[in-house]
Amino acid sequence: MTTVPTSITDGRALVDQAMRAAAERLDPWTRRVVAYHLGWTDEDGRPAAAGGKALRPALALLSARAAGTSYETALPGAVAVEFVHAFSLLHDDIMDGDRTRRHRPAAWTVFGPSAAILGGDALLALSEELLLDQHTRGAHWAARALTAATQRLISGQALDIGFESRDDVALDECLTMAADKTGALLACACSIGAMLGEGPTRLVTDLTGYGAEMGLAFQLVDDLLGIWGSPETTGKPVLSDLRTRKKSLPVVYALNSGRPESERLAELYTRPEPPSEDALREMARLVEAAGGRDWAAAEADRRIASAGRYLDDSGMDDVVAAEFRDIALFVTSRDH
Amino acid sequence: MTTVPTSITDGRALVDQAMRAAAERLDPWTRRVVAYHLGWTDEDGRPAAAGGKALRPALALLSARAAGTSYETALPGAVAVEFVHAFSLLHDDIMDGDRTRRHRPAAWTVFGPSAAILGGDALLALSEELLLDQHTRGAHWAARALTAATQRLISGQALDIGFESRDDVALDECLTMAADKTGALLACACSIGAMLGEGPTRLVTDLTGYGAEMGLAFQLVDDLLGIWGSPETTGKPVLSDLRTRKKSLPVVYALNSGRPESERLAELYTRPEPPSEDALREMARLVEAAGGRDWAAAEADRRIASAGRYLDDSGMDDVVAAEFRDIALFVTSRDH
Repeated sequence: MTTVPTSITDGRALVDQAMRAAAERLDPWTRRVVAYHLGWTDEDGRPAAAGGKALRPALALLSARAAGTSYETALPGAVAVEFVHAFSLLHDDIMDGDRTRRHRPAAWTVFGPSAAILGGDALLALSEELLLDQHTRGAHWAARALTAATQRLISGQALDIGFESRDDVALDECLTMAADKTGALLACACSIGAMLGEGPTRLVTDLTGYGAEMGLAFQLVDDLLGIWGSPETTGKPVLSDLRTRKKSLPVVYALNSGRPESERLAELYTRPEPPSEDALREMARLVEAAGGRDWAAAEADRRIASAGRYLDDSGMDDVVAAEFRDIALFVTSRDH
Repeated sequence: MTTVPTSITDGRALVDQAMRAAAERLDPWTRRVVAYHLGWTDEDGRPAAAGGKALRPALALLSARAAGTSYETALPGAVAVEFVHAFSLLHDDIMDGDRTRRHRPAAWTVFGPSAAILGGDALLALSEELLLDQHTRGAHWAARALTAATQRLISGQALDIGFESRDDVALDECLTMAADKTGALLACACSIGAMLGEGPTRLVTDLTGYGAEMGLAFQLVDDLLGIWGSPETTGKPVLSDLRTRKKSLPVVYALNSGRPESERLAELYTRPEPPSEDALREMARLVEAAGGRDWAAAEADRRIASAGRYLDDSGMDDVVAAEFRDIALFVTSRDH
């Protein structure tokens, strides 16, 4: 795996401290769920260290640098985007029935679905609260952008759930879903620091464009890992997205490719019974033979190139632009 | 039942129109759930008329009049508080396993829990969005107050869920729970129009105080109806809160009264099996004999009196104050 760019690790302690301080505002019962979900505690409330990579806060802080503003100004935005991300994971795991998150039991399996619903609700409200506590025009801009990203995140999840019961999902719908579910919040993360710093609108637009393209690349790679990733990397069983017959981007590409393999793949995807290990291996071969794997990898590259063009056009500081480029490469070169 | 005050029906058409316009922003799948939950459509998406009493929007508009501002200015606040209320009902029904809401199947039983979780999430985000779309200091004030009320609503629900597995709930904890779960949002509704109109801080404080006290009175009456209300009024079976052994205010008062009936009531409340009809009637008699019914009715009156004092002190227009008084009486004179 590529080395983690320093811009990701750089402000991590600052963000961690701010997140913990913000979570102190929650009532003890909800805080317990949130602390577990964020990896700060184990199931019994004892200190733990199991957090995620905190990609979104790192992007938020980097976007502050792009606008020439301080980390301190961007900090509420960094925490807010991570809280919205955490909210969506808490609720999605319940909806999707996912029992594992970051190699640990999902919060709803530990504390029950009610606690996880409330924990997510509290994080969503708290994210807005943190921004509104800043009485600046930039904070208003950031808060408005964050609610818009949240609505797209919700639409994307709704579309994704709808896909489960459909056998006619088109590639463009699937791309819309990924843009909403993954791209929108990453785009907000990449620009929220610049908004808080009241940077030029043009810079915010370019950072948003960069984040949306990088977000799609991120999802494409995630979908590749969901089929061909190793369990050590993904924390999930091999061929995991095929087990749940998820309509991920490479699969939907393959189903719509019009090649001979599409039909057999569609047949395996619509069988009522859970697929055997043999069937899973066959499905993976079919997705690859129908071009799904190559397309997804090439599309991720195209999106990264497109993300880079937003950086070129933005006129931002070269050092900061280089760090954004590093992050895009890091995100798409995860082990697959 | 007392006649509905004109201030409740007055701006209803305006609010209804604004709510429907706002819901148009949601993706079609989430909008379907929201439209059903708000009573605009039936289970098949056909137009229906099954909405609630829209008490909170009416209070929001009235608070605009208290601050001498227009309904138009207050409208985003009126819609936002109703959406937060709707969000909490959507999620609470899932958590509490309540299958009926306003005499109809609860949304989660019709569309599934995932759709109801997402519908609630979308309403919460949308409520903030509506306020942030107004670029005024008043809207910022209102948005901040609404997130604070939402956090208290969540704490109250967390506390309430915690009560279910406890047999040592004290009366002051139960009052805190009701103040959080019911009082906070009503207090916000009573003041949000004045915030949007950028009225004096003192007026907003008095309106918040009025709303918090009126909200507690509302909850006390609700709890009385939950035991002694008729099924026609409540839309629930007789003695409904006793069936679920809810730790409502009159019950918690009775359990802590130290009278001979407390012990027998506690015993019936902790039995593992569902109570028989005989046991339910005995529980109701015990709550009454231990003073729970009288205390709750007297406490509701005290809260209404206290709410009235906030109006006296506020120096607001007499006509508007009289309408707030009418609403408090209306809310506490529901058939019990």
